Amino acid sequence: MSEKLERLKTLLGEVADLGRASAVLGWDQQVNMPPGGGEARGQQLATLGKIAQEKFTSDEVGQLIEDLKAEFAGADPESDEAAMIRIAARNYDKAKRVPPEFVAEQAVVSSKAFEAWVEAKGKSDFSIFRPHLEKNLELVKRYISFFPPADHPYDVLLDDYEPGMKTAEVKAIFDVLRPQQVALIKAIAGKKQVKDDFLYKKYNEKKLIDFGVNVITKFGYDWKRGRQDKAPHPFQTTFGWGDVRITTRFEEDNPLATLFSTLHESGHAMYEQGQNPAYERTPLFGGASLAIHESQSRMWENLVGRSLPFWEHFFPALKKTFPSQLDGVGVKAFYKAINKVEPSFIRVNADEATYNLHIMLRLELEIAMVEGALDIKDLPAIWNEKMREYLGITPPNDAKGVLQDVHWSYGSIGYFSTYALGNLVSAQLWERIRADIKDLDDQIRKGDFSALLGWLREKVHKHGQKYEPQVLVQKVTGSKITPEPYIRYLTQKYSEIYGL
Amino acid sequence: MSEKLERLKTLLGEVADLGRASAVLGWDQQVNMPPGGGEARGQQLATLGKIAQEKFTSDEVGQLIEDLKAEFAGADPESDEAAMIRIAARNYDKAKRVPPEFVAEQAVVSSKAFEAWVEAKGKSDFSIFRPHLEKNLELVKRYISFFPPADHPYDVLLDDYEPGMKTAEVKAIFDVLRPQQVALIKAIAGKKQVKDDFLYKKYNEKKLIDFGVNVITKFGYDWKRGRQDKAPHPFQTTFGWGDVRITTRFEEDNPLATLFSTLHESGHAMYEQGQNPAYERTPLFGGASLAIHESQSRMWENLVGRSLPFWEHFFPALKKTFPSQLDGVGVKAFYKAINKVEPSFIRVNADEATYNLHIMLRLELEIAMVEGALDIKDLPAIWNEKMREYLGITPPNDAKGVLQDVHWSYGSIGYFSTYALGNLVSAQLWERIRADIKDLDDQIRKGDFSALLGWLREKVHKHGQKYEPQVLVQKVTGSKITPEPYIRYLTQKYSEIYGL
Repeated sequence: MSEKLERLKTLLGEVADLGRASAVLGWDQQVNMPPGGGEARGQQLATLGKIAQEKFTSDEVGQLIEDLKAEFAGADPESDEAAMIRIAARNYDKAKRVPPEFVAEQAVVSSKAFEAWVEAKGKSDFSIFRPHLEKNLELVKRYISFFPPADHPYDVLLDDYEPGMKTAEVKAIFDVLRPQQVALIKAIAGKKQVKDDFLYKKYNEKKLIDFGVNVITKFGYDWKRGRQDKAPHPFQTTFGWGDVRITTRFEEDNPLATLFSTLHESGHAMYEQGQNPAYERTPLFGGASLAIHESQSRMWENLVGRSLPFWEHFFPALKKTFPSQLDGVGVKAFYKAINKVEPSFIRVNADEATYNLHIMLRLELEIAMVEGALDIKDLPAIWNEKMREYLGITPPNDAKGVLQDVHWSYGSIGYFSTYALGNLVSAQLWERIRADIKDLDDQIRKGDFSALLGWLREKVHKHGQKYEPQVLVQKVTGSKITPEPYIRYLTQKYSEIYGL
Repeated sequence: MSEKLERLKTLLGEVADLGRASAVLGWDQQVNMPPGGGEARGQQLATLGKIAQEKFTSDEVGQLIEDLKAEFAGADPESDEAAMIRIAARNYDKAKRVPPEFVAEQAVVSSKAFEAWVEAKGKSDFSIFRPHLEKNLELVKRYISFFPPADHPYDVLLDDYEPGMKTAEVKAIFDVLRPQQVALIKAIAGKKQVKDDFLYKKYNEKKLIDFGVNVITKFGYDWKRGRQDKAPHPFQTTFGWGDVRITTRFEEDNPLATLFSTLHESGHAMYEQGQNPAYERTPLFGGASLAIHESQSRMWENLVGRSLPFWEHFFPALKKTFPSQLDGVGVKAFYKAINKVEPSFIRVNADEATYNLHIMLRLELEIAMVEGALDIKDLPAIWNEKMREYLGITPPNDAKGVLQDVHWSYGSIGYFSTYALGNLVSAQLWERIRADIKDLDDQIRKGDFSALLGWLREKVHKHGQKYEPQVLVQKVTGSKITPEPYIRYLTQKYSEIYGL
């Protein structure tokens, strides 16, 4: 192997080690840390982050990348070496463009903005958050200014989460999707609502968590290379190919959410566990993009976990575990209940039919903010207006409206659309999987997920970050990200459930 | 404040952050990590260690220390500034003398030696471990050669754990201690043995751990700044002034050991929790030496935790928790049982009367090894001979003899005497405490440990690393480390228990 490539891998391996050490510290902070540990932990994370940034943006790394681009100019662009150099170069270019002082300033501003957001949400008073959001937006615009002019300024933000993807592409996809999802919801609203009161009875926490553990074990989540703990918010985190962890939480008033969030996080985790171990500590390791990552979590949560064949397998065991709660409930009734469609205010609790509309609303607002076409003071009103237009409901207050999500408080703009794109990709992959695994439903009905996971590993997981999301989806499904499979999926599912 | 001192504190703060990040990773490795996580974790720890070493031994740090030594030449040597510079200079000098290649070589050699030791101990075959111990010893001698000639080559090793302490001092202390401990054990052997069968009945793990939690809560261990988890070996670790954790384990065949090890680790932890928060992330933070640290753990474990007043308070609760196990057992009988003296092969299980003899044996062998006065192949025979001489028993095999401790497999030589010194310091401090807190026994009998902990915080904990161990002990007790208080303590305690 090229000596320079070897050296670059050594340096990037150390940067990866620092990132993973930070991930361990972050995980511990959520899962274990006593209240007194916060200050020291913040300093440790700041120091690790600073050193990682310094190491990654060093002149030596820059020179190696330049030299290697030349050395591998004629190499197969799909080779590991060429891809690694390409991704390292992309990340290096991004990191170099953003001055360390800006990163430090943003950390301070967003930390204050986060506090203001907590207060504003608590009091449901947007005016408390407004000046902080304005500052965050100002910083976002400055961030964009560090990069060469793009087709659309929002492209710069989107590219951090979906490499190579353009705002125009996302808009085009959503323009097709929006009217059809709105129409679907209207059609459902005209039908008799399904019964789901039994989902909100008292469920024993430990039994429910154990049930989830059993399900994801059958999925193929590898416990020798992971573990699940309780945390205030469910998340997945990676400390190495051999240590991919998830967290869960229990919600008294929505107990089944515990189960579905475990399925969701296991989807993220199996993507990470399915990485090529040869990519460990290199820029090739990890998910191709947030949307691709979300396609995996949403697939296991929804396309698998909210399907009838899945519950034909698991419902008897669930009923045995919770006989009184599910007394008199059949599998079909249960299946309908967990798929109930009902426009609601809060994105994270939204069902599959309404979820994407929450995202589209946010994307439109973000684009308008970045374009400067929207005055921040008008945000709550516009939010509510769009809620009425898309979902037919009006938030009773800003806490359940414009203030509900934490993202804008960190100054994180450009992120939301990846959630909806993930849904679309999950359905798009699913059609391909169905074509390749003819008896998929029967396998799921038997609790056998090995062919499904094997397919995902081979077609998606093992490639890591080698391909940009659109390239990967094209390679696997024959077309770029497109909304049709998701629309077909929703239409078929809800036609059956609601008799459309 | 001096700009240079500010800069030095910034740099050393980052080094401290890296060390603490490593501590979090190490803790997680023991407490949580799934089996697959080992390889990546090893790389992360290696990278953090390497960066910390590079940062600490940088020319900038060296120059700052030189400049600050001059700048603070006239300052009160007991001022925080002077002490910080002095300790930084000492540590810097040590770190610079040891070449990074040596550190790397030692890591490889000792990792192989550890594996060989595990195998050797398993098969009770010293010959498997012998060549590795020879190599470890060779490296230890090379390590010594990096330093200026000392009064005794072993001084170099000892100084890493007990700053400023000389081999001759330790030998002089042990020469006084040894014959008196040997005589005490012989006297006890002539008396009727105490009954302790009830300690080895079946005890419920959770109840026993909860009992320990309750005890150390009363001691004053601050749970808002710490937590206890299960791990293969009990240990204490510090991630910051506000995050000081301990671990415990349950031993089926020695259940009460769980309780006493919790008391022991809480002693270490309260020392760390009692640090001056102004010393956070500076070289002043932490224990003065391993012996001083051990004096705290042994005090809470033994002078408090194996005392009669302590059990006069806690025994009723213990008996209520374990009524069948302790049926018919009174507090005096229990007190005698947990203080039973019986020469045994294994150091970590030794009672207070025999423990130090295990240490003295090891120290003599280590000194002989370093002097070259001992052929490694003769080690098992000499070990057994000394066991007979000091404890009157002969190990049945090498696993229970020369192979029992892990320390030599890491190449860690110079460490053992700190255990015995810790015992001596605990008794020496205890005499001072008794003089200052007249009704200490009554307080303990009431379960009130606040005056005791307050005394330790004021006299010992808050000074951190400011004073070398001998200086600290002199300041607090009026004399350097001396064996007499410990001998008085043992003699009084066992005279009562065994009617000597």
